[in-house]
Amino acid sequence: VTLTSDVGWAYAAQMKGRLLSLAPAVRLVVDLTHDLPRHRIPEAAFVLRAMASSFPPGTVHVAVIDPGVGGRRAPIVVQCREGSYLVGPDNGVLAPLATTLGVARVVRLDPDRRSGPARVGTTFDGRDLFAPAAAWLARGRSVGQLGGPATLTDLRLPEPRRRPGGGAEGEVVHVDHFGNLITNIPSAWIRTLRGRVSVAVGERALRVVRWVRSYESLGPGRLGALGSSFGTAEIAVARGSAAARLGGATGRSVRFVGVGGGARTTETVNNAARLRRRRR
Amino acid sequence: VTLTSDVGWAYAAQMKGRLLSLAPAVRLVVDLTHDLPRHRIPEAAFVLRAMASSFPPGTVHVAVIDPGVGGRRAPIVVQCREGSYLVGPDNGVLAPLATTLGVARVVRLDPDRRSGPARVGTTFDGRDLFAPAAAWLARGRSVGQLGGPATLTDLRLPEPRRRPGGGAEGEVVHVDHFGNLITNIPSAWIRTLRGRVSVAVGERALRVVRWVRSYESLGPGRLGALGSSFGTAEIAVARGSAAARLGGATGRSVRFVGVGGGARTTETVNNAARLRRRRR
Amino acid sequence: VTLTSDVGWAYAAQMKGRLLSLAPAVRLVVDLTHDLPRHRIPEAAFVLRAMASSFPPGTVHVAVIDPGVGGRRAPIVVQCREGSYLVGPDNGVLAPLATTLGVARVVRLDPDRRSGPARVGTTFDGRDLFAPAAAWLARGRSVGQLGGPATLTDLRLPEPRRRPGGGAEGEVVHVDHFGNLITNIPSAWIRTLRGRVSVAVGERALRVVRWVRSYESLGPGRLGALGSSFGTAEIAVARGSAAARLGGATGRSVRFVGVGGGARTTETVNNAARLRRRRR
Repeated sequence: VTLTSDVGWAYAAQMKGRLLSLAPAVRLVVDLTHDLPRHRIPEAAFVLRAMASSFPPGTVHVAVIDPGVGGRRAPIVVQCREGSYLVGPDNGVLAPLATTLGVARVVRLDPDRRSGPARVGTTFDGRDLFAPAAAWLARGRSVGQLGGPATLTDLRLPEPRRRPGGGAEGEVVHVDHFGNLITNIPSAWIRTLRGRVSVAVGERALRVVRWVRSYESLGPGRLGALGSSFGTAEIAVARGSAAARLGGATGRSVRFVGVGGGARTTETVNNAARLRRRRR
Repeated sequence: VTLTSDVGWAYAAQMKGRLLSLAPAVRLVVDLTHDLPRHRIPEAAFVLRAMASSFPPGTVHVAVIDPGVGGRRAPIVVQCREGSYLVGPDNGVLAPLATTLGVARVVRLDPDRRSGPARVGTTFDGRDLFAPAAAWLARGRSVGQLGGPATLTDLRLPEPRRRPGGGAEGEVVHVDHFGNLITNIPSAWIRTLRGRVSVAVGERALRVVRWVRSYESLGPGRLGALGSSFGTAEIAVARGSAAARLGGATGRSVRFVGVGGGARTTETVNNAARLRRRRR
Repeated sequence: VTLTSDVGWAYAAQMKGRLLSLAPAVRLVVDLTHDLPRHRIPEAAFVLRAMASSFPPGTVHVAVIDPGVGGRRAPIVVQCREGSYLVGPDNGVLAPLATTLGVARVVRLDPDRRSGPARVGTTFDGRDLFAPAAAWLARGRSVGQLGGPATLTDLRLPEPRRRPGGGAEGEVVHVDHFGNLITNIPSAWIRTLRGRVSVAVGERALRVVRWVRSYESLGPGRLGALGSSFGTAEIAVARGSAAARLGGATGRSVRFVGVGGGARTTETVNNAARLRRRRR
């Protein structure tokens, strides 16, 4: 069983306790992370897919990023073709991972069918609904007994677009622990010239940076772009934070332009700026 | 075995190593949390009770919130009627949980009776005393061999008081991961009128807010009150932080007044403020 | 298997998934810490040695503090005489721990000999190289099949020096979770007079502080020195942060001078300052 949330460790501990009370034979409870950015469903969905899809088939993944707790979103279980189960609120967080693992069946959790202690309040379904459902599945019981059929709410992660001349448009879908800006643009799409590429984040001007294989080959403090461990392009400052340097945040647009296609180098940009300053 | 502390992960890792060295057959070591607010005993006691009481009987809970390490507070083990053991300093942190689980026996750890490597310094009993004691218990050995009888230092968590007209007074006992202000006032005590209640935090004026069943029904950025997952009333800002909005901190007083009992609505408060400004 | 990193929980989760996919029978995956100060190799090496050396022989320790990922540093496994394995980049982080546990054999990981899925990019060897190697070892396979022989890059942690008159010079090698300044100076080296010692951090003037056995005996908010749980001297503020008070950071020099050896007491320093102010 794995646990992922934005609720912090103290609340997650209550999920673990409930889970182990109802399924004492669970062999491993693995914390993925409990400090996802709060309430940010698309980013959580992106990170959850990367984390959980590295686990073996048959894992029960509980994911509680649940700003709508107690509201209309359904509590669900997704049985995946690959053998794993996804448990959590049906607010889109589970959808990209479910698509990757293949959806076999979706069930809406029916609290009345659940055994175990009653809910305390309606503010923490992670402990009161999802942990008991995960315990049920971890004990090898049938998903069908947890509730009736449901459909999975889709979440479209933003789609990147190719541009003429070897460029691409997309956005920052995750700011990682180091401040690297992870985009949704496949690394393979970026066409570079002699290891250089032009990139713009948000409203900022295009600038030419090096496209490298490693942070180290950039040199400390240097901005560059490279293929992230998610298979997409990332913008990074070696031993620093691109998020701090560029003010980059999740959702910010990103443009890559092939250097061959008329982009200005950093030097050109600097020269132009110098000219503008002189004219004043 | 569960571990709870305010010492951070790096020190907690040394507790885990010592534990597993002395009890290699331990099946599960569960981190509850290691980032409790430092040195705050009543808040730690409140959170520990909520976390640990969700675990199955027979669990060994090690709780190291220990500002007095190396001083006069006794290192103890509480054997609970329900079958669990609590291991840590006797500074009050264990008391509310012990009361909930029922105290069967209290033992003062005697370092001289303990096997295993000698202490390094007197600054980290979590690794040097409590982890070895937990290992001993996890191996099924007798608590009586760890030391002589002791008495448990009581910790009175602040008591809420009912007020005439359906109101109540209490305090903030925990600021959670989201900045929600968790009070010690039972949710059942709050009498509301058409879903409204008046609340004041610290020196702030009473204001009327909605009493809701879920954050979502408040609407993003709106302040309100609801029943927390601890069974007590909480003050929250949907998708925001009530602690930041109200300057609320642990220990701050909280008053709920039944709306029917003469409380002003937010609108009234705003009108009064407008009048005061005009008079100047 | 233990995991230590500066990559944060979300990336560490991908290491866990890969590990458990390749070695589903692993009994315990223990998180040491994933929030080590980023890219600080000597501090990580110091903390890793303290954490990992408390674990039982036979443990597989994966340590990913890897600013040079994808660059020239070799990916290695150290087989220790004591029976444990250390897996990570050969950038010095593993060296002090390896020296403590005794080096039996060093192997350079050869990605081509590794089974399992191909690497995605070259930015996260923790998931793509080190977790699979740890899985291999956890399954009891031979370290020799992972690659050819290599030599371990040494990391000299800074050496403390004794000074005449019972003093010592060294540096801050770790700022802990509480802001305590952990030095590399053995506690046993410090000669005190009636529980007092003079200490200076960085460019600050020597000041006389109490050398105590516990934070509590200092009194809340008071600065003092004591024997840390690492066996070295630490500088601490009881229930406060010495790092905040003194501006102390890792790498800052530390001098202890025996009080008997001509050091001024805090009172003397204050008197001298008062005199200087009067003269102006």
